[in-house]
Amino acid sequence: MINKLCIIGIGLIGGSLARALRDAGQAREIIGYGRSIGNLQQAVELGVIDRAEVSLPDAVRGADMIVLAVPVGNMADILNTLGPVLPDDSVVTDVGSVKGSVITAARAALGSRFTHFVPGHPLAGTEQSGVAASLPDLFQRRRVILTPEADTDTDALMHVRAMWEAAGAEVVSLTATDHDRILAVSSHLPHMLAYCLVDMVVRHDDYRAIMENSAGSFSDATRVAASDPVMWRDICLANRDALLHALRQYHTDLGALVKAIEKGDGKWLVNTFTRAKHARDGLNKKF
Amino acid sequence: MINKLCIIGIGLIGGSLARALRDAGQAREIIGYGRSIGNLQQAVELGVIDRAEVSLPDAVRGADMIVLAVPVGNMADILNTLGPVLPDDSVVTDVGSVKGSVITAARAALGSRFTHFVPGHPLAGTEQSGVAASLPDLFQRRRVILTPEADTDTDALMHVRAMWEAAGAEVVSLTATDHDRILAVSSHLPHMLAYCLVDMVVRHDDYRAIMENSAGSFSDATRVAASDPVMWRDICLANRDALLHALRQYHTDLGALVKAIEKGDGKWLVNTFTRAKHARDGLNKKF
Repeated sequence: MINKLCIIGIGLIGGSLARALRDAGQAREIIGYGRSIGNLQQAVELGVIDRAEVSLPDAVRGADMIVLAVPVGNMADILNTLGPVLPDDSVVTDVGSVKGSVITAARAALGSRFTHFVPGHPLAGTEQSGVAASLPDLFQRRRVILTPEADTDTDALMHVRAMWEAAGAEVVSLTATDHDRILAVSSHLPHMLAYCLVDMVVRHDDYRAIMENSAGSFSDATRVAASDPVMWRDICLANRDALLHALRQYHTDLGALVKAIEKGDGKWLVNTFTRAKHARDGLNKKF
Repeated sequence: MINKLCIIGIGLIGGSLARALRDAGQAREIIGYGRSIGNLQQAVELGVIDRAEVSLPDAVRGADMIVLAVPVGNMADILNTLGPVLPDDSVVTDVGSVKGSVITAARAALGSRFTHFVPGHPLAGTEQSGVAASLPDLFQRRRVILTPEADTDTDALMHVRAMWEAAGAEVVSLTATDHDRILAVSSHLPHMLAYCLVDMVVRHDDYRAIMENSAGSFSDATRVAASDPVMWRDICLANRDALLHALRQYHTDLGALVKAIEKGDGKWLVNTFTRAKHARDGLNKKF
């Protein structure tokens, strides 16, 4: 049970966590802090948070759990503001899609209190943003990855794990390096491919005809191209090396596919498509 | 009203068309022809067709409408078998994802009766195959593209249009060249990107971890990689030039994205992602 939960950033993720913990009866009081007054008011009106604060020191005062649910690009600023006012007994965690850069910023900002910072990343979300899109069951049976460091406090880690489990999630641990390398392929790369496909179509002579004559394959391949552009710019830059590695591999592989079609190599195509189909059929069992 | 409808290939598309026309009361008798006895028996047991035939001449005898619902790679064989036994009063149409290659095969196989062949392509389907996956509402509010030639008979065109409208579809006309160029981007390219992404992951050192730590973006980006490999090999080869054009453009664009991330060009990234987001938000209104 969390006595006073402070969520920094009441968007899709922060709002959904608040709703889930309230529904589970796991948070006595939920304070929201954010930059947008309109969004905070909406969060209070929707009953997602008990109280909104527009001053970060006021928001975190007396909080036993502080969740940083802001975009990756805003983490360093928030952490630097938080450092000097962090209550002695608080556990801090975040929801950033990149872990290495957030850990570097947290070490610099929190000093000796870094031990009570538990880096985290819930594998949930939609292409929507804002508290109005938040859902109490967003984390049900979804995975949350925690990436504790060697000096992360064990009790703090347990508290954060318990919070996510109360929200319905399955919690696993990875090193930050493994997380960033794996997510570069499983999440960041698909976002890049979607943005690139829609942008190619936007600049195409047949733009309108392509959009009108598209069906499920195009719609699914591009769904996440509706995601927040600034958030994704920041993820690209924060996870640059791992993402570049994944993108270059994909670029090379796509080149091989082009070559096979140029040569009319039907055998290569069937083998490649069959290998992919078997793997994708396995994923269907998961979803 | 169709008196005797003969569907060659009772899979997802052929089976769904049979179900839709039966539900709409638009076909007095529905005959199915196919290579798989098991699938044909299942189609009869499910009530999708009235009768199964394993001889093509028997199947098409007396049919006023013949629908070729086989994969693009099998169209030429079917058309060559159909040519000598095509009833005088039949209208023939197909559902192939590529139109230029089917039209070439139909001209060669049907001779003077080519005028009663109406090339078509319903923009519907899932990654599933077979009659068990067929749905009576698969074509509801979905687009069907007809690509009549200059010598296509007007009455035949009207009959095929009326059939698809009775199945719930919105029917439009394009030239075969426009169809193949547009669909190369709106459908064939997304399939290639999905196959390529899953195949890259299959061969990755982190294969299992990537699959386990994937969420909606990976799932959506790769859904159609579960599609039939032989069918997609044949589409690649049948629409090779237009698909290569689309793939090369995407390959170049992806290279530009890699360059922007290498340079840390946040402005380029935000501009590109924003342009894509606006276009994709527009598509959301359609689905």
